[in-house]
Amino acid sequence: MIDAIISGSYSDVLAIKTARILGVELIKPEVKKFPDGETYVRITGPVEGKKVAVIQSMAQYPNENLIEYFLTVNTLKDLGAKEVIGVIPYFAYARQDERFKEGEAISLKIIAYLIEKAGTDAVITVDMHRHRVSDMSDIFSIPVTDLSAVSELTRYMMKYYNMENPAVIGPDAESEAWAKIAAKILNTDYYILSKQRFSGTEVKVSVKDKLNVEGRDVFIVDDIISTGGTIVNAMEILKEHGAKDVYVACTHPILVMHALAKIYEKGAKVVIGTDTVNSPISFVSVAPVIAEELKKY
Amino acid sequence: MIDAIISGSYSDVLAIKTARILGVELIKPEVKKFPDGETYVRITGPVEGKKVAVIQSMAQYPNENLIEYFLTVNTLKDLGAKEVIGVIPYFAYARQDERFKEGEAISLKIIAYLIEKAGTDAVITVDMHRHRVSDMSDIFSIPVTDLSAVSELTRYMMKYYNMENPAVIGPDAESEAWAKIAAKILNTDYYILSKQRFSGTEVKVSVKDKLNVEGRDVFIVDDIISTGGTIVNAMEILKEHGAKDVYVACTHPILVMHALAKIYEKGAKVVIGTDTVNSPISFVSVAPVIAEELKKY
Amino acid sequence: MIDAIISGSYSDVLAIKTARILGVELIKPEVKKFPDGETYVRITGPVEGKKVAVIQSMAQYPNENLIEYFLTVNTLKDLGAKEVIGVIPYFAYARQDERFKEGEAISLKIIAYLIEKAGTDAVITVDMHRHRVSDMSDIFSIPVTDLSAVSELTRYMMKYYNMENPAVIGPDAESEAWAKIAAKILNTDYYILSKQRFSGTEVKVSVKDKLNVEGRDVFIVDDIISTGGTIVNAMEILKEHGAKDVYVACTHPILVMHALAKIYEKGAKVVIGTDTVNSPISFVSVAPVIAEELKKY
Amino acid sequence: MIDAIISGSYSDVLAIKTARILGVELIKPEVKKFPDGETYVRITGPVEGKKVAVIQSMAQYPNENLIEYFLTVNTLKDLGAKEVIGVIPYFAYARQDERFKEGEAISLKIIAYLIEKAGTDAVITVDMHRHRVSDMSDIFSIPVTDLSAVSELTRYMMKYYNMENPAVIGPDAESEAWAKIAAKILNTDYYILSKQRFSGTEVKVSVKDKLNVEGRDVFIVDDIISTGGTIVNAMEILKEHGAKDVYVACTHPILVMHALAKIYEKGAKVVIGTDTVNSPISFVSVAPVIAEELKKY
Repeated sequence: MIDAIISGSYSDVLAIKTARILGVELIKPEVKKFPDGETYVRITGPVEGKKVAVIQSMAQYPNENLIEYFLTVNTLKDLGAKEVIGVIPYFAYARQDERFKEGEAISLKIIAYLIEKAGTDAVITVDMHRHRVSDMSDIFSIPVTDLSAVSELTRYMMKYYNMENPAVIGPDAESEAWAKIAAKILNTDYYILSKQRFSGTEVKVSVKDKLNVEGRDVFIVDDIISTGGTIVNAMEILKEHGAKDVYVACTHPILVMHALAKIYEKGAKVVIGTDTVNSPISFVSVAPVIAEELKKY
Repeated sequence: MIDAIISGSYSDVLAIKTARILGVELIKPEVKKFPDGETYVRITGPVEGKKVAVIQSMAQYPNENLIEYFLTVNTLKDLGAKEVIGVIPYFAYARQDERFKEGEAISLKIIAYLIEKAGTDAVITVDMHRHRVSDMSDIFSIPVTDLSAVSELTRYMMKYYNMENPAVIGPDAESEAWAKIAAKILNTDYYILSKQRFSGTEVKVSVKDKLNVEGRDVFIVDDIISTGGTIVNAMEILKEHGAKDVYVACTHPILVMHALAKIYEKGAKVVIGTDTVNSPISFVSVAPVIAEELKKY
Repeated sequence: MIDAIISGSYSDVLAIKTARILGVELIKPEVKKFPDGETYVRITGPVEGKKVAVIQSMAQYPNENLIEYFLTVNTLKDLGAKEVIGVIPYFAYARQDERFKEGEAISLKIIAYLIEKAGTDAVITVDMHRHRVSDMSDIFSIPVTDLSAVSELTRYMMKYYNMENPAVIGPDAESEAWAKIAAKILNTDYYILSKQRFSGTEVKVSVKDKLNVEGRDVFIVDDIISTGGTIVNAMEILKEHGAKDVYVACTHPILVMHALAKIYEKGAKVVIGTDTVNSPISFVSVAPVIAEELKKY
Repeated sequence: MIDAIISGSYSDVLAIKTARILGVELIKPEVKKFPDGETYVRITGPVEGKKVAVIQSMAQYPNENLIEYFLTVNTLKDLGAKEVIGVIPYFAYARQDERFKEGEAISLKIIAYLIEKAGTDAVITVDMHRHRVSDMSDIFSIPVTDLSAVSELTRYMMKYYNMENPAVIGPDAESEAWAKIAAKILNTDYYILSKQRFSGTEVKVSVKDKLNVEGRDVFIVDDIISTGGTIVNAMEILKEHGAKDVYVACTHPILVMHALAKIYEKGAKVVIGTDTVNSPISFVSVAPVIAEELKKY
């Protein structure tokens, strides 16, 4: 088991909740900004010889959060911490895992490399967003664990909302794994739609196989809601196929460009997300999922 | 000589001016942001086998600029660049070069380490701000050159303003080197004040030795104007000692918390700075200084 | 009854939820920014002869939201709307309702005046924050209704959390009205603490009368959580007096300077707020409260 | 003559410079922000019975600047100021002076109306940007004076740069008045190009009449540089017609989306602007122009 949790400034509440579940010490570093925009970090408790976990999501201002993370991890090691586990609930830069166009930075590789060089011994993340199933060991040389919040999201939806004879929907091929988990918990069937991406903000979702949603409630699960385009597209198709009420869950509620309003305007009953990203729909905490994993260290 | 200059998005104009002086190719990477705040970088010209200089200041949003810098440098190397010189005109994080208080990050060391690990082969900076004269080789294992913009600032002031029998003033011990250069160009004497710092925004400046400014114009030179407290303090003392008009120059016009208004309100004739930081007083370009140095590579 | 709801860009989701409850038309204006920061507003549906409600909170960037509100209301009138009800769930500028110090703007009066001049016929707000019970008719010459979200917050807490023999706590004199409502719903007793404010971020809470919380859960209700100082102070006192678990509710979760982390660190079981402000704890919607009131128009 | 100048927080340095020229009192209000984003304003000197000018540009965050302006002006009147002249060097919202599309806010009219209602007795602005020559008295019912900075810009360029046999260029029909002024000062001819606007960021510039620039330096004058598209387009045409060096001047350097880099990349010798907007090219102050006008009050 780890000895202490170090809270990153973005994920401070999540860190407190995780430390509370595990009953371990919480160290909250002093983090401030100098007038020129520099980040200042000071570790406020003893860490020598300890195994610690730093919790910091790469959301909202991922670059700010990353530099704070680098300063924190490196200082922990410098102060004698035995092992530093980087818990990065939302891992930005995950999509850019290849050079799609000449001259592009393979951002994921570079960020992963800097995370390692900063002193991280292992990474834990949640529902990492990747276009394709790339092998983590190509990207990281330290152990990486990719947890899922889909069970927590599904159980929350079951507990607080009455979905009738729900069909689970994964809006694209990548979401199949998540749809499968949700369907198992709900003891029902699931369907995967097909998505084509035209740009960072334009997508088109279509039906691939049969879609048995006529007269049924649907539960859409996805890893991330960014501009909301995918979900809105999926809802149109589901309505065309006779779906009743639509319930939406995602792990990472990035929610830019009025995504939430677009989805509610389309008629969604409710939209929920987790606290990997601090948002107005972060109803579900990933603290239990992270705590469970940290017990293994 | 270098083969090309790569412009960082913060220092794009400075990069163009430097490339123009040297007559070398300018490569302007495509830089954009994904909805979640991730930075995307694409190098838009061939760099294989080339010796290139990346120009990017760490000003305004130093962490944003740094991550873009890491992505750029690492990609240049990945694309086969032979040597990458990092030109970082304003080098943030320079003050935190020691652990002043238990648990503090020695930020300068960590940032320098990451700059190296990203693939930088040599660093060029301008009037780097340090509280004490630390040895660069303790901090960097790659060559670092610290240029000065004081000659350019002094010549600009001479050319465009009529300072009468000016005395040069360095507002604190660290500024002595700069005051000496300015005094030599102006062929006059210089005086160094003494500064005590109480916090990030509070300072007290006092007279150390004799101060012969009675009835004379004064030319204050400093590396950086942040909140303006130091300059305002120095101006009060100079006025008490009978100084006439006050002319102020700094290399890095960070200018937060209405610094410029405070200095003008105190009666300054004019305040000038350079384009290491993009500000309303960036009248002097460091492009000639950087170009001169890049010729040596 | 009103004919349509016009959604302000900050309160878009709340507007959709309110329109859904009332079954009235939702008009979502096109709102964008020009390169120089100007706001552009276009009303996208017919409003001639209609009675409409504009829903827009003054949270996060209250000045941005206000200018958009002025442009929207004035244009609605210009397009022939018969009556415009301004629903401003979080009403910023409410505290500055007097000239406490010579030369101060009495901001509330000025903002209220501009809201009227822009064309607003009536204002609806929620748990408006005032230091003292000033008479609304001194400030507005149009009708103003101040609704409360405390019943909704209390019922949510009862439904989802098991508070044992709870005592309701109002952390200062102004919160007495809210504590009373919560205590009635919970069918229990309430206690009001005494608060002294030293600055915008420093307060001291103390016990005024007897405080019977020994061994009991406590439910703190307040109108607004800003820096969290008041709640943290109150929790310390409650713990000293033997309180068990602490549950916290506020209408307006402004939550700056890591307020939420401070409260959770102090041991709070849960902290909830409403969607007058979009925050990570906006679990309760004020849509039903607003919808109920709009039926009267 | 006015009795005092009140500095708005955005235009603080310009206000100091103007007060210095006129030798009148400068009052610098205390302006701060509450945690919820509210603006606080306090007038720090006596204004009863005085004629005062408030200097505040609507640049960078025009809505923030406007609300501060409303609070300032209204409070000045409330404190007994006899007359308040609003000096708004950059007047945002000027383009939207008609309803081009159904449902649009005629923003200029609404903003002008609120400026009046706030207590402004007269408005002074500089090179106000309008698509067409609308009559100011249709928009304002108080006196409005539109000054020009073109003489100052032209004289600065003459003083510091050696333009050889320069031809003055106005990049679109609206800029003819400015080009005429510049040509008169430079004692040379001028040419007006034709501009078509496709969107907020896309324009196409073309030649209307003859264009005698072969082998000559050109001096482009415009009121505003926003994305830089117009200037870049104009430069392409001028180069095609054999122009030598290009010098660019604008009153309002808004400079978004790397406008300055685009223009320098195209080969501009130098680009200058004024301090109506605080920018890295605000080399020329409009203080003398404003001071001259204020003498008439």
